Amino acid sequence: MRLDFSVAVHSLLYLEQKQPAVISSRELAVSMTTNPVMIRNILSVLHKQHYIRGVVGKNGGYQLDRTLAEINVGELYDLTIPPTISYARFTTGNTEASGAGSDINRNIEATLTDLFTLADTGYRAFYHQFTMADLKQDIAQHGYFKQIARLPYQGGTE
Amino acid sequence: MRLDFSVAVHSLLYLEQKQPAVISSRELAVSMTTNPVMIRNILSVLHKQHYIRGVVGKNGGYQLDRTLAEINVGELYDLTIPPTISYARFTTGNTEASGAGSDINRNIEATLTDLFTLADTGYRAFYHQFTMADLKQDIAQHGYFKQIARLPYQGGTE
Repeated sequence: MRLDFSVAVHSLLYLEQKQPAVISSRELAVSMTTNPVMIRNILSVLHKQHYIRGVVGKNGGYQLDRTLAEINVGELYDLTIPPTISYARFTTGNTEASGAGSDINRNIEATLTDLFTLADTGYRAFYHQFTMADLKQDIAQHGYFKQIARLPYQGGTE
Repeated sequence: MRLDFSVAVHSLLYLEQKQPAVISSRELAVSMTTNPVMIRNILSVLHKQHYIRGVVGKNGGYQLDRTLAEINVGELYDLTIPPTISYARFTTGNTEASGAGSDINRNIEATLTDLFTLADTGYRAFYHQFTMADLKQDIAQHGYFKQIARLPYQGGTE
């Protein structure tokens, strides 16, 4: 869920600020006032993907293993919030339908799934514009994102 | 929630196919095998915004009040899934923080809210490319969306 991404971002910024100290998951949990088990699960994913290095577990500790400029925000988003494989529960329709409106019923799920999937692909591409260094810059100087973000479809057919 | 959008799309396509018949919310609910109360709530919104005309309520009935080509998919998306005003529950941080990492804690919520809001703006812009006539076309000939959709950030700095 989306909070996982926020926790990953927060953790990486915190580790960077504390460099070269080795930081425990407990300290991160206190800093974020968030459930330590959740933090450890996210740190474990970041560790496996070599965003951070150190000793995993309750008594472990971590350091950043890349510079912030080497960490793409979109990659972090995709890692912590994987694309939904199916939107089936968000769609109506019944592929076995017959009778009134049955062509709509049979096909609307596939059509809406394509629509949502394409929209999601574009959504994720937005995050890939940035690195964690940009995110740090916005924290230091709020409004930075709004200045540099490219929004899609401008100058289009709308 | 997202299902509201799918139900709105399905209802409009169904009314269009049945033109010029007057369709009850009961018939729509049966066609979608969905809760009739939920359908009536969504139909009431569509009626208020002049997408459909007719008599609201349990014994009411509806007809389309625009052509499918006059209905923008993005406007329908914004109507049925209004933009989230605050992403606060998806962010970490504490605006009252002091001590270790307190500048991150104080500012990360505002930074992530900007990031998510900009991403959401771009996401919604995607849907505004299409009309309900495009959606009908994809139902008749699946794959049409994939052909015509413009995805953002291509040829960018990635």
